[in-house]
Amino acid sequence: MTSGLLISLEGIDGVGKTTQIERICAWLRDRVDEVLAVREPGGTPLGEALRELILQRVEAQSSLAEFLVFAAARAELVETVVLPALARGAVVVMDRFIDSSVSYQAFGHGLAVKIVDQINRVVVHERTPDLTIWLKGDPFPMARADRVEERDAQYYARVEQGYQWLVQQEPQRWLVVDSRQSPDEVFGLLQERIETLLNDM
Amino acid sequence: MTSGLLISLEGIDGVGKTTQIERICAWLRDRVDEVLAVREPGGTPLGEALRELILQRVEAQSSLAEFLVFAAARAELVETVVLPALARGAVVVMDRFIDSSVSYQAFGHGLAVKIVDQINRVVVHERTPDLTIWLKGDPFPMARADRVEERDAQYYARVEQGYQWLVQQEPQRWLVVDSRQSPDEVFGLLQERIETLLNDM
Repeated sequence: MTSGLLISLEGIDGVGKTTQIERICAWLRDRVDEVLAVREPGGTPLGEALRELILQRVEAQSSLAEFLVFAAARAELVETVVLPALARGAVVVMDRFIDSSVSYQAFGHGLAVKIVDQINRVVVHERTPDLTIWLKGDPFPMARADRVEERDAQYYARVEQGYQWLVQQEPQRWLVVDSRQSPDEVFGLLQERIETLLNDM
Repeated sequence: MTSGLLISLEGIDGVGKTTQIERICAWLRDRVDEVLAVREPGGTPLGEALRELILQRVEAQSSLAEFLVFAAARAELVETVVLPALARGAVVVMDRFIDSSVSYQAFGHGLAVKIVDQINRVVVHERTPDLTIWLKGDPFPMARADRVEERDAQYYARVEQGYQWLVQQEPQRWLVVDSRQSPDEVFGLLQERIETLLNDM
């Protein structure tokens, strides 16, 4: 594995991304030399500080400003953690990545998709995921503490439309899984697809 | 004045931007209905929080990440403060703006000028300054407390080259003033040019 494998998990909060990432990583650790799980925004000192600032402390009035804070956290994570790990041949599993910006900031908050996409491409140095898993669930998740998660039902419906649109653009990159199945059933589907990717490497 | 007037001051720290901005604003307050002085990064709750984070607390490893933090602060400032003030016909005087990103992040830190320029244009909604004043001084300023101001002499030389390059691109937008003159002499030159702009409105 010389260029590694980049897998991202997407979907609104509460659909089980964290649980599935833990299971994927535990399973992969027996199969590959290096497995790395990272979350967005975060994963670096700068990213975690920005995460705390934007999710807990100061709400952005400008959707573009909010996106740029996430993009800054992403740039730091990609350059200092993700790309070096991929260069070592690691499997990197990301809890949210570029697609979250398109669904949340563009579809959810009305930023132009073109702008989000343009800045995303710069930030990831054109290294898009090899596989993105959309855990598609109930569009009205339980409320959580973070600011980002206090939005209304219409907002979540637009985020869902964003994911739908992204899947249509690049169907070969995406695996869409109904998260209302049991965690074991969901994990089985993820395993099957990742297995294929590993065998193709 | 229906579209206002946007003036930015540029130059490395210690050349007297703050002093000149105070004098410009005091003078303009007798001449126009609304004068607004803002600083970058900062000028909004989000911008000030990001300023404190990136200048005092966490150093970015990625130059792109650092630029995106400044861009986020700028987006919030432009959308919530600068554009509304200009729409009311105000004169907005900015302590640093888009050109700082080109000289510091692109020329200083090696980010591609094209990327910085592209993101700057999105962030300011194409509203570039009517006048930018470069207070050009000693390229080796006294040390200050902020992280950004602890760089070495070569770095400041590149920043200076950045300003030179920017002036060459759009000479009509720039006024270059030798800041080693007395504050009164500097202010006289600034007054003269701003006077012309006000008369042309």
